[in-house]
Amino acid sequence: MEKLTNYTFDEITVGQTAEYRKQITERDIVLFADVSGDVNPLHLDAEFAAGTDFGERIAHGMLTGALISAALALELPGPGTVYLGQSLRFRRPVKIGDEISVQLEVVEKREDKGFITLDCKAINQDGKAVVTGTAEVMAPREKLSLPKPVLPEVSLAG
Amino acid sequence: MEKLTNYTFDEITVGQTAEYRKQITERDIVLFADVSGDVNPLHLDAEFAAGTDFGERIAHGMLTGALISAALALELPGPGTVYLGQSLRFRRPVKIGDEISVQLEVVEKREDKGFITLDCKAINQDGKAVVTGTAEVMAPREKLSLPKPVLPEVSLAG
Repeated sequence: MEKLTNYTFDEITVGQTAEYRKQITERDIVLFADVSGDVNPLHLDAEFAAGTDFGERIAHGMLTGALISAALALELPGPGTVYLGQSLRFRRPVKIGDEISVQLEVVEKREDKGFITLDCKAINQDGKAVVTGTAEVMAPREKLSLPKPVLPEVSLAG
Repeated sequence: MEKLTNYTFDEITVGQTAEYRKQITERDIVLFADVSGDVNPLHLDAEFAAGTDFGERIAHGMLTGALISAALALELPGPGTVYLGQSLRFRRPVKIGDEISVQLEVVEKREDKGFITLDCKAINQDGKAVVTGTAEVMAPREKLSLPKPVLPEVSLAG
């Protein structure tokens, strides 16, 4: 069974990096619209989007924010992380089919509270930053290695 | 047909407010786990979550971030908004069944670039702030009233 493991505060070093990759699909945009309620036609209606400056449907900016949050929760520090804060700058649109690489780097450790600051970059397949920002988390104190939960199957009509 | 309408930069005033409400369901947590890839057991496994400081499954913090982004995209300014930046502080957990009210208030208009800064608060049914932050957006110049897209039906197995 696949496992989720973490890095504890003591194991984490300034300069440590991690990566999390995901390709953005049309299905992701529909699911994100459903869960957030943001049914803006820029994300959902190809004809409308063609008439905007973007020229085609784009993903919700916060969908890339969700990938950054997943990178923190799954990769560095991983399970047991408490999310304290996040800043995000939306720099470029993400389009259907784009391959997003979230790159994390630990830039600060605060021993007193167990807080960690990470630089966060989401880069597309052309090497361009689409979203950048900074995360503040409380790193886990306890080493965890957990079975990776299996989600129920999600299907879309039509 | 239901319409999405916006406020243009010229229509927006400092102090203007808007609200967007959504109840967080188990289905939302599963969909957010699917779309982000964050299958942390704290969100998905009741038994695991019972053994944590939270005592029960909680929603992904960034799911509330997604509601803030939806409030900006749907309510204020609404369609045609370009998302520039967002800061988020995760203050309290959101649990299944919580009724979240996202409250936006315009705190600054910058005439030169059409930028608007909004104070963002996500409040639970007990009146407690769960997420707070600040959004920076480019407000639309053009008045829009668009048919609200209808999503394909999303279903979960089991």
